[in-house]
Amino acid sequence: MNCALPYQERNIITLAHGGGGRVFHQLLAGEISSRFPKGSGHDAATFPTSGNWAMTTDSYVITPRIFPGGDIGKLAVCGSVNDLAMGGAKAKYLTLGLIIEEGLPMDELRIILDSIASTCARADVDIITGDTKVVDRGRGDGLYINTTAVGEVLSHHFVHPNQVKPGDVVIVSGDVGRHGAAVMASRQSLQFDSEITSDCGLLHETALELCQSLEVHCMRDLTRGGLASALIEVAQESGTGTSISEELIPVTEHVASFCDILGLDPVYVANEGRFAVWLPASEVDQALKIMHHHEISSGACVIGDVRQTTAYPVTMVTPYGTHRPLDMMSGEQLPRIC
Amino acid sequence: MNCALPYQERNIITLAHGGGGRVFHQLLAGEISSRFPKGSGHDAATFPTSGNWAMTTDSYVITPRIFPGGDIGKLAVCGSVNDLAMGGAKAKYLTLGLIIEEGLPMDELRIILDSIASTCARADVDIITGDTKVVDRGRGDGLYINTTAVGEVLSHHFVHPNQVKPGDVVIVSGDVGRHGAAVMASRQSLQFDSEITSDCGLLHETALELCQSLEVHCMRDLTRGGLASALIEVAQESGTGTSISEELIPVTEHVASFCDILGLDPVYVANEGRFAVWLPASEVDQALKIMHHHEISSGACVIGDVRQTTAYPVTMVTPYGTHRPLDMMSGEQLPRIC
Repeated sequence: MNCALPYQERNIITLAHGGGGRVFHQLLAGEISSRFPKGSGHDAATFPTSGNWAMTTDSYVITPRIFPGGDIGKLAVCGSVNDLAMGGAKAKYLTLGLIIEEGLPMDELRIILDSIASTCARADVDIITGDTKVVDRGRGDGLYINTTAVGEVLSHHFVHPNQVKPGDVVIVSGDVGRHGAAVMASRQSLQFDSEITSDCGLLHETALELCQSLEVHCMRDLTRGGLASALIEVAQESGTGTSISEELIPVTEHVASFCDILGLDPVYVANEGRFAVWLPASEVDQALKIMHHHEISSGACVIGDVRQTTAYPVTMVTPYGTHRPLDMMSGEQLPRIC
Repeated sequence: MNCALPYQERNIITLAHGGGGRVFHQLLAGEISSRFPKGSGHDAATFPTSGNWAMTTDSYVITPRIFPGGDIGKLAVCGSVNDLAMGGAKAKYLTLGLIIEEGLPMDELRIILDSIASTCARADVDIITGDTKVVDRGRGDGLYINTTAVGEVLSHHFVHPNQVKPGDVVIVSGDVGRHGAAVMASRQSLQFDSEITSDCGLLHETALELCQSLEVHCMRDLTRGGLASALIEVAQESGTGTSISEELIPVTEHVASFCDILGLDPVYVANEGRFAVWLPASEVDQALKIMHHHEISSGACVIGDVRQTTAYPVTMVTPYGTHRPLDMMSGEQLPRIC
C-alpha cells in the first residue's frame, strides 16, 4: 500500500532506520536506548574487571519470532546468560546486535525490545552497547538478534566436559523437548488439545548455586540437537561412555504425543531452559535438593551415569531392556529453533 | 540444478550445516575452528582480566560481500577493532557470529573466513568463541557477520565526545569517501577509468599511539554517515560548534569525480579506515607526526577547529568563503555499506 505519510512516520522499519542519519537516531533514542539506560550511547562501553571472565555469543534467527512461552528477544537474553552459566560464569554485561528487515512492524519491534529489557532485569544483566542494521525487504526474515555476554567466572571448580569421569551421575533439569515442539506446532499452525509452551528460561541461578556449592564436573544446556546431542558431545570430549535410561527421561504427555504423531524423538528436540549436570554420585542428593528449589529446574532427576568408554558414546536402555546407541543427527530435525 | 550428491557433499551451505548435528560439526571443525585455533570449542570462552575493559559489537550486512579493497570478513574485524580503538582500548578477544543463507558457496565462505583470520592476525586479536546459524534460502542475503570485541582500555586520558573543548583542533586521518564510493561502484557495476578501492583497514596502532602519547580528547571513526555525521554527533554531545574548511578535507580525484557524477557529497559517504581526532592546538604537530608514521593515517591533516556553540553544530567554509551548515542526513545516501 502506498501511503502519503513520510516514511519515518509510517509504523514500520525503513532502510533509513539503519542509515546513521536522523531517522536512525530517532529509532535509537526513542525505542532502543530508552529501554536500556545502562547503554553507553557509543560504539564501545567500558567496565571495571578483575579475575577470570567468560564470554559467549549467539545469533538468534528463530521463526516464528513470537511463540508460546517466549519470543526471539527473551530467547536471545536467556541463551547468552545460560551459555555463560553452563561454564560457571554469571553474565554481567550484554551487547545487543539487531539486524532488522525493512518492513518489520514497529509494534512488533517494541514487543521484542520490551521482552529483552524485562528478561535482562530478571537476569540482572545490563545491555551496555549495541548495533542496529536494517536490510532491504526480502533480504532478511524480519529480525535477527545477536547477543554477546561477558561476566565473571564464579564456579569454584573447573566446569568442563573434560572433567567428566566414569562414576559420574547425569541429571537432567526437567522435561525435555518442549521448546522445539512449541516452535514446530506454532510454525505449522498445528492444533492440539493443549498448547505446548516453550521451556525458554534463565538457568543462571540454579546452575551457579550448583557449581558454587558442589563438585560439578560439567553442565550443558540442551539446545540445538537436544539432550542426545549434548550427552554425545560431552561423552566424546571426555572420552567416556554414558548410559541413560529412557524411562527416566522426563517428557510431558503432550510433547510425547506430539513427537509420536510427527515421528520425532524428544531426546533430539531442542530445549531453551533445560540443562544436564555431571557430578559425582555422592553429590547427587544435594544437587537435586538445590535444583528442586528453583522453579526452572523443579523437575530435575537422574537419568543415567558415566562409564568407561563403550562402543558408543551414549547408550539408551529402552523400557524393553534393549540397548539403543544414540548417534549424532546428520542434519537436524527442525531448522531455526533458536 | 538438482544433483545426485548427498547435500553435505555439495559445495554449498545447507540448512543441515546449522543444525547442531554431524554436518554442523564438520563445518565447525573443518572450516571454522581450524582457522581460529584460540577458539574455546565451546559455547563460552574464559580469559583473565584486570583494570578497565571496553566492549563493542557490530553486525555486518554489506552488499556486495567482496568489494575492491576488502570483504565482509575484513570489515567485520576492522570495524570492531577500530570501535574499541576510538575509545582508547586495544581489542584482545573477538567473538564471531555467522548467519549464513542456505546456498552460500562454500568457496566464498572459505575466502571470507581466511580474510577474517588474516585480519585478526594483523590486529593481534583472537577469536575465542563463536556461533553459526543457517537460515533458509530467501531469508538472508548470503552472509551476515557479527563481531563483538573486548579489550583493555590503554589510553591515559578519558577519550570521549564530552571532553571536546573550544580551541580543540580537528584532524582527519586521510582522504574521505572511498569505502562508500567503492561499494556503490561495485554494486552498480559502474565502470570508471580507475577502480576506487575501499579504505577498509585497522586503526588501532595509530589511534592507540595517539591517545597514549598525547592529550587526545576524542576520536571517532567515520563510518555510516561519513565525516559530516561524526562531526555533528561529537559537536552535539560536547555542546560545542565545529568549523571546518571544505578545501582542507582530503578527497581523491577519483572519489570527487564519482561523487560529482552521482550527486553525492563525499563528507557524508562512509569510510572504514578513517577517523577524526580532537585535541588541543598545542598537540597538533606531534599528532600529525605520529599519524604520518602509520600508513593508514599517512594522509592526516587538520580540517578545522572547535568553537563555542554556534547556530549549527558544524559549519563548513566553502572555497567561495560562504558558510554552509552541515545537517544530519535524514536517511542515508547508500544503504548497507557496512
